[in-house]
Amino acid sequence: MSQTHDMHTMPYERPNIQRLAPYLPGEQPRPGDRVIKLNTNENPYPPAPAVLDAIHRVDAEQLRLYPQPQARAFRQAAAKVHNLDENQVIATNGGDELLRLAITVFCQPRPTPATAGEISDSAGLGYAVPSYSLYETLAQIHDTPITTIPLGHAFTLPDDFARQLNAAGCRLAVIVNPHAPSGRLEPLETLRAVAKTFRGVLLIDEAYVDFAQHDAVSLLHPEAGLDNVLLLRSLSKGYSLAGLRFGYGIGHRDLIAALDKARDSYNTDALAQAVAVAAIQHRRHAAQSCQRVIAERERVSHALNTLGCRVLPSQSNFLLVTPPADASSVYQSLKRRSILVRYFDQDRLRDKLRITIGTPAQNNALISTLTELTNTRPCG
Amino acid sequence: MSQTHDMHTMPYERPNIQRLAPYLPGEQPRPGDRVIKLNTNENPYPPAPAVLDAIHRVDAEQLRLYPQPQARAFRQAAAKVHNLDENQVIATNGGDELLRLAITVFCQPRPTPATAGEISDSAGLGYAVPSYSLYETLAQIHDTPITTIPLGHAFTLPDDFARQLNAAGCRLAVIVNPHAPSGRLEPLETLRAVAKTFRGVLLIDEAYVDFAQHDAVSLLHPEAGLDNVLLLRSLSKGYSLAGLRFGYGIGHRDLIAALDKARDSYNTDALAQAVAVAAIQHRRHAAQSCQRVIAERERVSHALNTLGCRVLPSQSNFLLVTPPADASSVYQSLKRRSILVRYFDQDRLRDKLRITIGTPAQNNALISTLTELTNTRPCG
Repeated sequence: MSQTHDMHTMPYERPNIQRLAPYLPGEQPRPGDRVIKLNTNENPYPPAPAVLDAIHRVDAEQLRLYPQPQARAFRQAAAKVHNLDENQVIATNGGDELLRLAITVFCQPRPTPATAGEISDSAGLGYAVPSYSLYETLAQIHDTPITTIPLGHAFTLPDDFARQLNAAGCRLAVIVNPHAPSGRLEPLETLRAVAKTFRGVLLIDEAYVDFAQHDAVSLLHPEAGLDNVLLLRSLSKGYSLAGLRFGYGIGHRDLIAALDKARDSYNTDALAQAVAVAAIQHRRHAAQSCQRVIAERERVSHALNTLGCRVLPSQSNFLLVTPPADASSVYQSLKRRSILVRYFDQDRLRDKLRITIGTPAQNNALISTLTELTNTRPCG
Repeated sequence: MSQTHDMHTMPYERPNIQRLAPYLPGEQPRPGDRVIKLNTNENPYPPAPAVLDAIHRVDAEQLRLYPQPQARAFRQAAAKVHNLDENQVIATNGGDELLRLAITVFCQPRPTPATAGEISDSAGLGYAVPSYSLYETLAQIHDTPITTIPLGHAFTLPDDFARQLNAAGCRLAVIVNPHAPSGRLEPLETLRAVAKTFRGVLLIDEAYVDFAQHDAVSLLHPEAGLDNVLLLRSLSKGYSLAGLRFGYGIGHRDLIAALDKARDSYNTDALAQAVAVAAIQHRRHAAQSCQRVIAERERVSHALNTLGCRVLPSQSNFLLVTPPADASSVYQSLKRRSILVRYFDQDRLRDKLRITIGTPAQNNALISTLTELTNTRPCG
């Protein structure tokens, strides 16, 4: 071998990528596996029929030509829904892309090891823990400092959350609201207070907001006097379109313009744009699905309580449940019976399971299986 | 207003994003505009009928559930086509995502202004100019140093290209082959020599390779003794699927594993995955479209030569043409006659037009309009 450099002496990727433990999505059963899938917070009901119609109307020309680079038809439709301006909306390849863009645009990467000394852990990302583990992964990919702030009892934001973010020099903070994995909703006044005090950009991850009684869009109105708020919306859960990878951000036009510069030039495809426009225009259908999920959430919550599980009040499409036996064992037992739920081997979550709300039949299967499991085990 | 911080005193985004001039895609006519669109290198022929069938078979369940995170069915299909292993393939949201991932993973961002002194311009991206302008934009978003190396006469790579990259400390180099915007193909031996000498990762952007007599996959075989080569493929041009945003990377498994860690967790959607699998399985249809484009390319090239244009030999689906009159004026005149071509206000390109090969009827319209324009203007 005549190469000038030796093969495999050291990896080509940056040290932060070498160290990275990639994000692990929930298990995906293979097509044909007969499982009750309550592990990744999908909506149990199908999307609006108009969405499938939009797909079936796609023609060869839409595929052959580049898509509209800004997804303008979607931006206009979303702006109309939220009574905002088109330039306050950005369409993204899933909500995850918006998270990545915000970290790229607002957070500073660490200096290289070559530059002398360590600078203080500042100019990075802050969020409360426990939370959606992708925030950490994305910050590690960007190699920006991370500040984690423990949530209070019952997963409440601490009163000095914004002051802690400022003290750490965070440039971006993420609040997932309703919270994942607890389902707890922080009220609008808390969010407003954080945004007023925090000196960086506050991204409120509203992936699950369609299942809550809540609307934070007023934080974006000029009367709110806030220029640092971004809301993340997703079509994955509320619109039953997890397969589509379509999300969007809404916020101050200057924040949106900055994010817009950093996205891939054609970040959403022509099919997804057509489907997303149909979905948001037929949001009444989605809202009805969400109402059915909410009704089931209350029913399942009550039933699990009766079984001796502790269940946190949720405004989302999942429940965080403390079973009366070892959670990891219950997770395994459910899995053996073809019911997938989510277990997180993390502080404050090791005694809990996150259970997605399914159809009434799926939920009944869950309840009866848990009844059987808890009757044959010592209670906690 | 009671905010602790003043609104609008300074932007929230990082300085490199503030300075960034975003990538400008070619003009996109609105639906219904009757133009001859020869400006963004789309394939003039539709994708395989099987591709539309795949879309029309999409059901609500595929939309409701998260997609397979690694696009495994596509990776397996692509691996089979190239006679490689599945773990040598990564599916991306357009070839552009692969470019962004490679820069993120292999290139070091600059130190913050807060860290004392400027370090040498190293550990960044290198490429020859002129080239696809997105490389510069993506490097600026990542805030990594850029080394540009001028192409020789006729857009050839300089003999000391790899040595110049090494001298600048580049961690990643991109060669677009066939070259854009000239259409010139660098032979395999040149690529092999660059890869052997260059100490970083060599990404060969083969977005247009389906129109060339060329196959660089042998650089990935163990016998080649190279661990630093990545090939970028796109379904946009050769497969007539620019609307779909689907590309892929093939390379050494360690490079693919590193890129895989840095991609968004569900970077390609369920629809796009289904379509991409159908497209690559029906690649014979795509190859026939490409043959028709190649035949037209040769015919148009000859006709433009006859008109007094200088036309570089192209192995792509476009021609770089020096018209016998001011190129910018010819561009404007064509546009007034509803023919869109691409004009780049850049060094070495200001006297040229990049013209996509269209259908025979579109090409005839171009030729006759150019005939008319060059007959009524002084020749160059």
